[in-house]
Amino acid sequence: MEEKQTEIASLGEFGLIDRLTGDLKLVNSSSLRGVGDDCAVMEYRDTDVLVSTDLLVEGVHFDLTYVPLKHLGYKAAVVNFSDIYAMNGHPRQITVSLAISKRFTVEHIEALYSGIKLACEIYGVDLVGGDTTSSRAGLVISITCIGDAPKDRIVYRSGAKDTDLICVSGDLGAAYMGLQLLEREKVASAGQKDFQPMFDGKEYLIERQLKPEARRDIVEELEKAGIVPTSMMDISDGLSSELMHICKASGTGCRVYEDRIPIDYQTALMAEELNMNLVTAAMNGGEDYELLFTVPLHMHEQVSKLPGIKVIGNMTKPELGCCLVTRDGTEMPIRAQGWNPLAD
Amino acid sequence: MEEKQTEIASLGEFGLIDRLTGDLKLVNSSSLRGVGDDCAVMEYRDTDVLVSTDLLVEGVHFDLTYVPLKHLGYKAAVVNFSDIYAMNGHPRQITVSLAISKRFTVEHIEALYSGIKLACEIYGVDLVGGDTTSSRAGLVISITCIGDAPKDRIVYRSGAKDTDLICVSGDLGAAYMGLQLLEREKVASAGQKDFQPMFDGKEYLIERQLKPEARRDIVEELEKAGIVPTSMMDISDGLSSELMHICKASGTGCRVYEDRIPIDYQTALMAEELNMNLVTAAMNGGEDYELLFTVPLHMHEQVSKLPGIKVIGNMTKPELGCCLVTRDGTEMPIRAQGWNPLAD
Repeated sequence: MEEKQTEIASLGEFGLIDRLTGDLKLVNSSSLRGVGDDCAVMEYRDTDVLVSTDLLVEGVHFDLTYVPLKHLGYKAAVVNFSDIYAMNGHPRQITVSLAISKRFTVEHIEALYSGIKLACEIYGVDLVGGDTTSSRAGLVISITCIGDAPKDRIVYRSGAKDTDLICVSGDLGAAYMGLQLLEREKVASAGQKDFQPMFDGKEYLIERQLKPEARRDIVEELEKAGIVPTSMMDISDGLSSELMHICKASGTGCRVYEDRIPIDYQTALMAEELNMNLVTAAMNGGEDYELLFTVPLHMHEQVSKLPGIKVIGNMTKPELGCCLVTRDGTEMPIRAQGWNPLAD
Repeated sequence: MEEKQTEIASLGEFGLIDRLTGDLKLVNSSSLRGVGDDCAVMEYRDTDVLVSTDLLVEGVHFDLTYVPLKHLGYKAAVVNFSDIYAMNGHPRQITVSLAISKRFTVEHIEALYSGIKLACEIYGVDLVGGDTTSSRAGLVISITCIGDAPKDRIVYRSGAKDTDLICVSGDLGAAYMGLQLLEREKVASAGQKDFQPMFDGKEYLIERQLKPEARRDIVEELEKAGIVPTSMMDISDGLSSELMHICKASGTGCRVYEDRIPIDYQTALMAEELNMNLVTAAMNGGEDYELLFTVPLHMHEQVSKLPGIKVIGNMTKPELGCCLVTRDGTEMPIRAQGWNPLAD
């Protein structure tokens, strides 16, 4: 990265776009026309179209002192794919808009794009458009993702019934612990040259924070098993917050069992090291991008067999509220303590 | 605007979104599901899907010292609709993402949204999603517009033939002159309370800059007349720049005649007052959001009859280059001097 650096102004907007997108190829049959006209053009004759958008702001969503630009690009794309999977669909196209301040060079933006392109390649998504401009302060990334699903497979937040089982994929809290670790090392390294951060045995936490994956595999598994969840969301703000969204949209309550919440051992060790409450971290941490979904009660055996999926509780009638049942049987009301991007 | 002001943090992200989008209704049959889930959902069975996106940054694209927030919202939406019309399509949905710094209140964002909603109402577009977050400095607006067109009516930049006629709608240079006027009054008013800017007789210029319209009427007129242009763009960066885009994409040259470029008398008077070259302003001003398109030569009579459309020249073989033919018959090479958002 500290090799040859080219000023962006020397290329101009169209020169920069050519350099970033000149090698793009479209792989999806729904992508008719990509970068280079007033609009991208797509064709969706047999499926419904899903659209999701995210805005990432330097200093709010990411800190470039410890997030490499390539990782940032990868994550920015993947979190948008995750929103499409959360509807039980498949991402097909993205547009990428960037506002770039003067301290970034062409090589920096190429590094960011290399992460976006890698994510697109791995998930089979076409980059079809965007906008590139300058900013007065920092980097802003706006990604819109377009995906599709057959009408009868689309899953909303609002379809859960009050007897449904609640399932999650993967494990929770690791991305949050990764962030705590990165922030701690940032403080420890302040002002030190050649500082070597201590991540031994914590690689999983760092990876979950810096290079999250979207759960395409779960959407594919559900499809193979012939299961259409009754409701689904991805866990971006934290399990508590997402549970409450689904309960509100579906008009239900819920019971989630503390001893069933999937947690990786690195997450548990890190919580101990930092003297933090492990369950609080797993319930409210956010950025895990796992899938939270509900299925009818009679699917218990079927869904329990699926690799990487755990039943963590059940929906209830709305008057019972949303509670976490602790190991000793106490019912604790769930409150959304997820990340509030407008709080500070 | 200076009445009751509510801090955004007091509502939180979801409270703010509820307040801004609680009253939205979907009017397009293609809009199946709007705000409130991981994705918006759309259905496009018979038409192709068009997607365009724009990122607007405070201090780069707009100056809130003279742009009212409602106007800003209106313009931000309309310029995206314009990209869809530029493909000969119709805008149907938008997503709106905002990054908001602390100095903005709920009422400010409501004013911005009222402009976006007004534009949506007038143009028949549904607001179906977005993202809302904080920013460290200033306001950032990212809008993605989704539209559609029957496959055989979509117009690209690349379809012009070397004998086609070049047409533009409306008049050019007024938005640029409006900007000059607003900037001049901003300097004149610096530090003065109760300053009254002098806009008498220049209302059209101010309106073109602050409240541009997209040319839906032209797209509808062309459809009624049974004309599908061979190429089309909207004029956002300036006629020179857009002509060069079309010529490059279509593999042609062009001749445009100075005495045929449509210019409003207020634009001409203002250019004289500011001692600026009128044709330079009309060729390079930008932000007019008029449509530039080409039609086959044999449609000359047909297209000349359409209200608000003027034939300004013709395409040529590529080896003849892109030239403006001045009133005395001199051929001046056209250079793109349009706005470069990455130049400073």
